[in-house]
Amino acid sequence: MTDSFSLQDATVAIVGLGLMGGSLALALGAQNACRRIIGVTRDGKTCQAALDRGYLDVAGPELSLASEADVIILATPVRTIIEQLPQVGQVARQGAIIMDLGSTKHAITQAMQVLPPHVEPIGAHPMCGKETFGFEAAEATLYRDATFVLTPLARTSAPTLALAESLAINVGARPTVLDAARHDEIVAITSHLPFILASTLMTTAAELARDDDSIYTLAASGFRDTSRLAASDTTMMLDTLMTNRENVVVAARACSRHLDELANLIERQAEDALRAMFQDAATRRRAIFKP
Amino acid sequence: MTDSFSLQDATVAIVGLGLMGGSLALALGAQNACRRIIGVTRDGKTCQAALDRGYLDVAGPELSLASEADVIILATPVRTIIEQLPQVGQVARQGAIIMDLGSTKHAITQAMQVLPPHVEPIGAHPMCGKETFGFEAAEATLYRDATFVLTPLARTSAPTLALAESLAINVGARPTVLDAARHDEIVAITSHLPFILASTLMTTAAELARDDDSIYTLAASGFRDTSRLAASDTTMMLDTLMTNRENVVVAARACSRHLDELANLIERQAEDALRAMFQDAATRRRAIFKP
Repeated sequence: MTDSFSLQDATVAIVGLGLMGGSLALALGAQNACRRIIGVTRDGKTCQAALDRGYLDVAGPELSLASEADVIILATPVRTIIEQLPQVGQVARQGAIIMDLGSTKHAITQAMQVLPPHVEPIGAHPMCGKETFGFEAAEATLYRDATFVLTPLARTSAPTLALAESLAINVGARPTVLDAARHDEIVAITSHLPFILASTLMTTAAELARDDDSIYTLAASGFRDTSRLAASDTTMMLDTLMTNRENVVVAARACSRHLDELANLIERQAEDALRAMFQDAATRRRAIFKP
Repeated sequence: MTDSFSLQDATVAIVGLGLMGGSLALALGAQNACRRIIGVTRDGKTCQAALDRGYLDVAGPELSLASEADVIILATPVRTIIEQLPQVGQVARQGAIIMDLGSTKHAITQAMQVLPPHVEPIGAHPMCGKETFGFEAAEATLYRDATFVLTPLARTSAPTLALAESLAINVGARPTVLDAARHDEIVAITSHLPFILASTLMTTAAELARDDDSIYTLAASGFRDTSRLAASDTTMMLDTLMTNRENVVVAARACSRHLDELANLIERQAEDALRAMFQDAATRRRAIFKP
């Protein structure tokens, strides 16, 4: 068993200093939430930019920097996390917590199960983000009021879960424990489907515009908001979708079916059915997000 | 032919004091852009609320109030506009400009063609809005920086077009002249398709959630923005879609096809094709809306 420790006394290593990892470093630093912060990034410019902000004690390209850390947080795209885990398991000190911020949780927690017994793995997924990315998009307030999903493994100890919850609270988020497989089912609906729709909106618009880009002078806030996620980082999204294929395919096909149904109803001028469908969607949307 | 007059000297009647009409009354009033503003609304509460704001000289439920106006602006849903046009043509004084703010333009400009010869019709569609509606959602700044489409008819005189442009500029918008049929093709892509996708996202989420509304605790800004338009006013949207059926059905079916294609590519793990598609959509999105 591991000795438990408090976040306040911990050295935290963050691997990947993009939007999520960079914002976490800034949030922990701004709150003075832990003893030291170590940054790991292969990008030299990001490394310097992160050090310039004054919160990191050390930053560099080598995963071995994480060997001093009590908490190691992987903030890279999902499949990079899965690649990095074995190496992180090797460099991690006795009792170190290994956490990740990946967008899907089943594949990552599966990979965490085979980590050596001297480390304490736990999955995490803070429900926040932006369509801009990289350290230059990072901000200390990104996690504020976000739901911070934690997916403990069977081997995850209570003190490790408690420390992860404390970390979430320290950056202003609301920790919520969830089963990894259920997490992936849900985010296919609430996160991956919206990305797919936004991207497909851009693809469809480009096809229908037939090279007349002047159509976008008529694009107002509706188009802007519905298409926003299409600008997301492609590598991150591809990793996300590829590690949640079954759920995403079900969601995309269900949506395609509803769209076809809608097109048929509009063609047939089936106004009562359309009114009921739109009204129901409007009522649900207003219940979830109060104006 | 009509005597030309300036907006500054004009009495403007606005029929319908919801989000669009109410905001126009507030914007014209705040700018002191015209001589008098008359409001026409069947809703007694809206009538009082509008009068209370101090910009309207008179407000009431009868279309005949518009008989004193130099400019009559119909700001009701599209099919209500089409119903009201003949009556407005009857009450309008010699040389009065009849303009509308409807979301589709072909059906409305067709209906405007048969207005009596003593009036001056012109179609308009300001590209702005919100998912909240009614006079309580109205704001004087709604039109600021919006593209304000004008669709003149063959019979529309140059002074009428000039006055409509002046009105758009006075409320902070950018007037743009466009053919009515082409307008409808474009907004099917930039406005009606985003609404349909947002609404279908809510429908699909409800189906996949299987009555577990707790999934929405994981809905972050991505789901919020992509679904925003689903909360739009159902009557307004139904009128809009029903008067632009052909274009909307084409757009919905194209989008459904792209969604199916995407689902197949994800299932087959065709990552190169997916990457190219997402990257192209991301590049287009970033070109249209700078971060």
